[in-house]
Amino acid sequence: MEYQYLQLANDLELKIRSGNYRAGEKLPSLRTQRLRTGRSISTVYQAYNELEDRGVVEVREKSGFYVKPLLDKVLPRPLSDRRTIEPLKVTTNTHAMILQEYINNPEMLPLGTAIPAPELLPLKQLGRELRQAAAGYTTGAMIGYGHPTGVPELRSELAKRSVGYFSKERGEELIVTDGCLAAIDLCLRAIAGEGDVILIESPTFLCYLQLIEDLKMRALEIPVDPDSGFDLDMVEKALDEHDVKGALVNGNFHNPLGYVLQTKMKERLVEMLGKREIPLIEDDIYGDLHFSETRPVPLKSFDTKGLVLYCSSFTKSLAPDLRIGWTMPGRFKERIKRIKFNRSVACSQLNQVVAARFLASGAHDRHLRRMRNSLKKQAANLVMGIARYFPPGTRVSSPKGGLTLWVELDKRVDGLKLFDRAAKENIAIIPGSLCTVTGRYNHCLRLNFGYPWDDRMEHGIERLGHLIDEMIAENSG
Amino acid sequence: MEYQYLQLANDLELKIRSGNYRAGEKLPSLRTQRLRTGRSISTVYQAYNELEDRGVVEVREKSGFYVKPLLDKVLPRPLSDRRTIEPLKVTTNTHAMILQEYINNPEMLPLGTAIPAPELLPLKQLGRELRQAAAGYTTGAMIGYGHPTGVPELRSELAKRSVGYFSKERGEELIVTDGCLAAIDLCLRAIAGEGDVILIESPTFLCYLQLIEDLKMRALEIPVDPDSGFDLDMVEKALDEHDVKGALVNGNFHNPLGYVLQTKMKERLVEMLGKREIPLIEDDIYGDLHFSETRPVPLKSFDTKGLVLYCSSFTKSLAPDLRIGWTMPGRFKERIKRIKFNRSVACSQLNQVVAARFLASGAHDRHLRRMRNSLKKQAANLVMGIARYFPPGTRVSSPKGGLTLWVELDKRVDGLKLFDRAAKENIAIIPGSLCTVTGRYNHCLRLNFGYPWDDRMEHGIERLGHLIDEMIAENSG
Repeated sequence: MEYQYLQLANDLELKIRSGNYRAGEKLPSLRTQRLRTGRSISTVYQAYNELEDRGVVEVREKSGFYVKPLLDKVLPRPLSDRRTIEPLKVTTNTHAMILQEYINNPEMLPLGTAIPAPELLPLKQLGRELRQAAAGYTTGAMIGYGHPTGVPELRSELAKRSVGYFSKERGEELIVTDGCLAAIDLCLRAIAGEGDVILIESPTFLCYLQLIEDLKMRALEIPVDPDSGFDLDMVEKALDEHDVKGALVNGNFHNPLGYVLQTKMKERLVEMLGKREIPLIEDDIYGDLHFSETRPVPLKSFDTKGLVLYCSSFTKSLAPDLRIGWTMPGRFKERIKRIKFNRSVACSQLNQVVAARFLASGAHDRHLRRMRNSLKKQAANLVMGIARYFPPGTRVSSPKGGLTLWVELDKRVDGLKLFDRAAKENIAIIPGSLCTVTGRYNHCLRLNFGYPWDDRMEHGIERLGHLIDEMIAENSG
Repeated sequence: MEYQYLQLANDLELKIRSGNYRAGEKLPSLRTQRLRTGRSISTVYQAYNELEDRGVVEVREKSGFYVKPLLDKVLPRPLSDRRTIEPLKVTTNTHAMILQEYINNPEMLPLGTAIPAPELLPLKQLGRELRQAAAGYTTGAMIGYGHPTGVPELRSELAKRSVGYFSKERGEELIVTDGCLAAIDLCLRAIAGEGDVILIESPTFLCYLQLIEDLKMRALEIPVDPDSGFDLDMVEKALDEHDVKGALVNGNFHNPLGYVLQTKMKERLVEMLGKREIPLIEDDIYGDLHFSETRPVPLKSFDTKGLVLYCSSFTKSLAPDLRIGWTMPGRFKERIKRIKFNRSVACSQLNQVVAARFLASGAHDRHLRRMRNSLKKQAANLVMGIARYFPPGTRVSSPKGGLTLWVELDKRVDGLKLFDRAAKENIAIIPGSLCTVTGRYNHCLRLNFGYPWDDRMEHGIERLGHLIDEMIAENSG
C-alpha cells in the first residue's frame, strides 16, 4: 500500500500537469489542504516536500509552496534531422507575408509572432521618460538629424551594459539601427553580395530566410540539435565543401528552438570561422531573456579578429515600438556606418533618448528580472497546455530563455494547412515550413510564449489540439 | 540730369543688393526717409514705387514697403554641360562620409547638409502632440509592432493630402518608411539588382550616388539644364543606347539645382519611360517647399501604368527627427511591403502618430506657408551674399523652391580642397564633385539655404569668398 503522503503528492502532481494549478500559482496552505483532504497537517507537509523533491513546486520563505515552471520532463524533445543540405535559393516569402496581416490584429491569439505582451513591459516608466524627452522637440534641440551612429547617451549606456562581455573598446564599434533585423540586414549587405552563401541554423528564424531572399543570397542550412544546437563537425564539413561568405547565428535562446549554445561550443565556432576569415553575424536579441540565473555570454566575447558582427535590440525585452537595435560589427564598422548613413542618415533621437533615459534610471535590471520570471512561467504553462491538449506523440523543445518553442507533431499534420485553419479560428501560429527552405519541418510549429497564460490561451491551445486531431484523422488509412 | 526720385531709387537698390537691407526687411517709412534724405515725401514715394516696378520691393497694405526676395537677375546661371556619359560604377562614398561628422556639430556653419533650421519648424505644436501621444506608451496600446505599412491615421492623412494629384486608390499603395532615402532604397531594391543601370540627373543629390554604390548598381548620369532640367531628347537617346533598369528623378526643386520640371516635360518623361516599361522612382521630398503660389504636380500624377514609385518624407518640411517617409510604389507595392517588413517589420508608431496628429490639427498648411516664405527670403539673401563676396564670374542657379542652390566658380577652384579649407574654418559646404561620378563639377558647390540669414552667415559667406579668391590666385599664372 502506498503512503498517504505519496498518494496526495501523485494526486497534486497530476493536477499540476493537467493545468488545474498553473506555473507560479500558490498551492493551498497546509491548513486549507488539511481541511480539503482530511489528511493530517504532517501528511500534507510531507506531500508538499515530495513535490519539491520532484521539482514540481518550490518553497518561498514565509509564503508557501508555489508551482514551478515545468519545462522539462513534460514532453519528449523534437528529433534532430541530421541530413546535410546544399545551399538553396530562398523562397519562403510568399507565405511569410500572410503573417504581416496578423501582427496588429487583436482578435488573433498571439502564438505566432515572437513578441512579449504589453503587460510584461515597463509602460509607466517609458511613458514618463517619453513625456520628459518631448522637451527636446519643444526646444528644437532634438528636432534635426541625430548622430548617424546613434545618440551619445544611448551608445554609452549600451556600452556600459556590455562591459563584462566585451572589452571597453567594443563600445566604440557600436552603431544604433532601427531594430535588430535592420542591423542584420546592414551586416549581410556589408559582408556578402548576390548569390553568396550564408550559413544558418536549421530550423531558423523565418525572417533570416526572407532577408537572405531579398538580398538574393543563398542559405546553407545546418541541422541543429533541439537541445545543443550545432554539431560543429557538421559545420566544419560544410565549410570545407562550400564557399561560405558568412554565418548568421542565433546562439542564445535560439529562435525557434530555445536552446543556448554551450560556452565551449561558442568559442570553437568563433575560432573555426575566424581561422577561415569568415564573418559571423551574431543575433543576441534574446540574450537578456534567460530563465536561469546568469546571462549566457555572446559569441562575440570570443572574437579576437573583429570578425563577429554582434546584433541586438530592445524589441523583445523593452518595447517593440522603440524600433531600436544596434550592432558592434568589428572590422566592418566603417562599411556599415556608411551603408546605414546612406540609406537613412540617422535614427530618430526621440526613441533613442527614451531608451537611454530608461537605462540610466536603473529600472532596466528590475524590469528584466520581472520579465524573465513571467516568461519562464508562461513557457511552462504553454508546454503543459500542449501536453494536455495535443495528441500523443507530440514533441516539444525545452526553451532555456527567449520567446519561442518548437513543437513536432505527427507527420500526417500539414503545418501550412493547420496555419490556415487556425487562422480561421483567430489563432496565429508559425508553420515549421517557414523556418527552412528545405521543405522539412512541415509537421512542426513555432509558438510564442510572450503572453500570459489565461483562459483564452487555454481555449486556443485546446482548439489547436482538436484541429491537429482532425487533420491526423483525415490523413489516416 | 536724373530725376531726384530715380537717384534715390538707384541708391536704395544698390543698398539692397549690397546687403544693407535684407530680403523681407521693411524699408524706412516715407516720413523717416524724408527726414534722412531731405527729399520730399512725394519724391520718396515715387522712388519706392520705382523700386516696386523694378521688382526689388513689394507693398504690403497698411504696413509699408518690403525688400523682396531677389533670386533672379543677381548672378548669371551655371552653364549646362551637355556631353553624355556612360553608366559608371559609383565611388563617391569615401569623401561623402566626411560629411557625416558635420551633421551634428553646432560649430559648423550649416551650408552643407540640406536641412531646415529648427526655428522654421512648428516646435511647440510637435512637442504638444508628442506629450499627448505618450499616452499610447503608458496604456500599452502603442508599445507593440505597428502595422507594417504604417499607422492607419497617418496613412489616411497622407492620402487626403495627395488628393488632387492622385486618384483616391493611390492612397492604398502608401507605405510608410523611415525617411525618404529609406523609401528610395526600398524602391531601388525592388526594381533592380547588382550591376543594373539607373538613370539619374547630373549633377544629382549625392546620397543617390551613395545608395547606388552600396547596392552595387551603376549610375547613368544625364546632364540637366540649371533652369529646365532634362533635355528629353538626350534622355530618349540614352534609353536607346543603354539597358536602363530604372530612373531616379527629383523633378520638383531639384537637389542641388533647385529647378522644377515643366508640367509638359513631366508628362512626356513618364510616357517615355512607361512605353519602355522602365520604372521611375520619383523623389518629391521638396514638393511642398515651393516659392511660387502653387505646388508643382508630381510626376506620378501622369502615371497610368503603375510604373512610377513616388517617394517623399517630412524630413525637409516638418521635422527631420521624425524619420518618416513614404512611398506609393504602384505595381511594386507587394514587393516593397515585403522587403520593408523583412528588414524592419514596422516603423515606430510613436513618431507616426505625432505626425498624424499634427496633420489632422490643420496646423500643417499654416506652418508650410510660413516656412516657404522664410525659405524664399533665405535663398535670396544667400544669392545676394554670394553676389557681394564671391569673385566676378561666379554663377548661381535660381532655385524655385527646396533647400539648395548650386554655385559655379572659376575653373581654377578645386572644390574638394575648398571643402577641406572651409571645414577648418567651421564652414560646411558640399563640393560639386560629390554630386557626380563623372569628375565634372569640381569647381562647383552646393549650398543649403535652410538657415536664416544673419551676421554669422554673412561672415561665413565672406570668408568663403576670400578662400575662393586665394585659391584662384594660387592656381593662376
